[in-house]
Amino acid sequence: MDYGVPPGRGVSGIAVLGRKPYTACRRASCYANSRTAFDMFGAIEAGGTKFVCAVGSGPDDLETIQIPTTSPEATIGAAVAFLAGRAGGELQAVGIASFGPLGLDPDSPSFGHITSTPKLEWRNFDLAGAVRRALGVPIGFDTDVNGAALGEARWGAAKGLADFVYLTVGTGIGGGAVVGGRVIHGLVHPEMGHIRLPHDRARDPYPGICPYHGDCLEGLASGPSMEARWGAPASDLPPEHPAWLLEAHYLALGVASFVCTLSPRRIVLGGGVMQQAHLFGLVRAELLELLNGYVQAPEITERVSEFVVPPLLGPRAGVLGALVLAEQASIARGPGPAGPPAAPD
Amino acid sequence: MDYGVPPGRGVSGIAVLGRKPYTACRRASCYANSRTAFDMFGAIEAGGTKFVCAVGSGPDDLETIQIPTTSPEATIGAAVAFLAGRAGGELQAVGIASFGPLGLDPDSPSFGHITSTPKLEWRNFDLAGAVRRALGVPIGFDTDVNGAALGEARWGAAKGLADFVYLTVGTGIGGGAVVGGRVIHGLVHPEMGHIRLPHDRARDPYPGICPYHGDCLEGLASGPSMEARWGAPASDLPPEHPAWLLEAHYLALGVASFVCTLSPRRIVLGGGVMQQAHLFGLVRAELLELLNGYVQAPEITERVSEFVVPPLLGPRAGVLGALVLAEQASIARGPGPAGPPAAPD
Repeated sequence: MDYGVPPGRGVSGIAVLGRKPYTACRRASCYANSRTAFDMFGAIEAGGTKFVCAVGSGPDDLETIQIPTTSPEATIGAAVAFLAGRAGGELQAVGIASFGPLGLDPDSPSFGHITSTPKLEWRNFDLAGAVRRALGVPIGFDTDVNGAALGEARWGAAKGLADFVYLTVGTGIGGGAVVGGRVIHGLVHPEMGHIRLPHDRARDPYPGICPYHGDCLEGLASGPSMEARWGAPASDLPPEHPAWLLEAHYLALGVASFVCTLSPRRIVLGGGVMQQAHLFGLVRAELLELLNGYVQAPEITERVSEFVVPPLLGPRAGVLGALVLAEQASIARGPGPAGPPAAPD
Repeated sequence: MDYGVPPGRGVSGIAVLGRKPYTACRRASCYANSRTAFDMFGAIEAGGTKFVCAVGSGPDDLETIQIPTTSPEATIGAAVAFLAGRAGGELQAVGIASFGPLGLDPDSPSFGHITSTPKLEWRNFDLAGAVRRALGVPIGFDTDVNGAALGEARWGAAKGLADFVYLTVGTGIGGGAVVGGRVIHGLVHPEMGHIRLPHDRARDPYPGICPYHGDCLEGLASGPSMEARWGAPASDLPPEHPAWLLEAHYLALGVASFVCTLSPRRIVLGGGVMQQAHLFGLVRAELLELLNGYVQAPEITERVSEFVVPPLLGPRAGVLGALVLAEQASIARGPGPAGPPAAPD
């Protein structure tokens, strides 16, 4: 089945991802011995074109399906039916990593909502609330890119790192930053794709594709900007095409800015555009040139190939990150059986 | 006394700051009742030209002196003598907010050191260790700008905010970011002044003054860059001079980048250049234009004058931040009397 998913944003190219049935111990005593190994979590990576839903406890124990994004009722209904059916009443919590913009302030009435999306049926929709009411379990909730960052932190390219950036370069450009082991939220949430960059119009007269800013990072370096500039999708441009040097230049300018602002221990570059493996070497070389030895850290100056890296979880980063969100929600609630589903309102 | 301190960097224009003697209760029972109100902390704001040292517990209870920065032995000796003398054996901890670059990784042998400074006598000097050995108390240690951020967070313009940026615009440009209530360190520490910006050379042919990057934020908008571009110190340029619109443009580009990367709840702009109060209105207007409504937060779109603000602690931010570092070091160590000074090595 093909729902016409655009490249990038972490969910590109997913078929049905996992078939391995959930086989972990379900006995109550198992929870006491090793909560992480035997918990039963639900995960939803909510995209504008499809929902990827999963039940399990980690990459080696994950049953996954895709549901096309239609109306909230139909899509949530199918997601909830899958989660409830597969979990057999033992679901501990559900994590949702969603397209946005989102309400992430726990003290705001809009917490858990998709807010000002152009998709009218989903605008101001209480996504977290709908799933919580249907399943009666704690809900973890964050952006899709923060979800992917959490997944890579737990099982992927940022494993064991308390400070890193996950940047997705695809239909749009978005970043999730982990600082001191926690995802940055702040006032709203970061919008790393929208920083402004030096733009040499003599070298690159293309004005940029961002409807808000023109030539911000996303405006100059997203997949659609490449296609508009060169008249062909990025995936059709051969490695020797000048597009890639320019793309690496803009991405390195962005990465250098994040290095100076956040001082991360690693930068993970994912998304459809980064499927071009040759791009990593170009970005690393440009980054070293831009920093010019100012940030004195051998992790960058001597080991840049371990500093700017591809993701390890590929298209599963988002849904695995949603699983981490579920675990966090479960821990926040504390041990004990989940309550019954609340009455619908 | 004038030690020729250049403007900006948080320590400009300080004379002897505080004369109020330390009068708080010293009885042991007081500590149990309210540790914060009655603790006795030492603070050192270590600058390349002078050390500002203080003893006390907060802005209303602070005795302060200045010591010129000469050799480590003479400067540290005078600082330690002041702290020990004023504290009368009751010093709980000392905080140091220092010029850098610094070793901030607690697991590294260079922790507590000033590392690659051009000041030869101070290069690779174990500043935190020297003070700890002399006084025998826990030491808190961080950059000068992180210190200023902590001071403003505790008593100043960022009071009560868990997520904000303190940016100093003076001889250089540096930033301290607080995320989730903690100062960002990461791999090294942020170098926010060195992000690259769009630079329209038709409008501003000045190439920038940064020896590493030319036209990064610091290269285009620091005090020395203004003086080099316009042939007069920033403080001599009248408010109607075109310098200020250009300066506001660059600062707003920087602020917009930090908004997109960190999603702070406030940005505090300090340092010598920001003494020009008229600059704040220009920066705010440029910021709104640059963001162009993309970040949907009334805290920015409707209340920008509370979003981009001057510091409240003025030149005392750094030394008060060092006091916060002392308190943190004391809490990390736990209650109980300080041990005797360790034998010198």
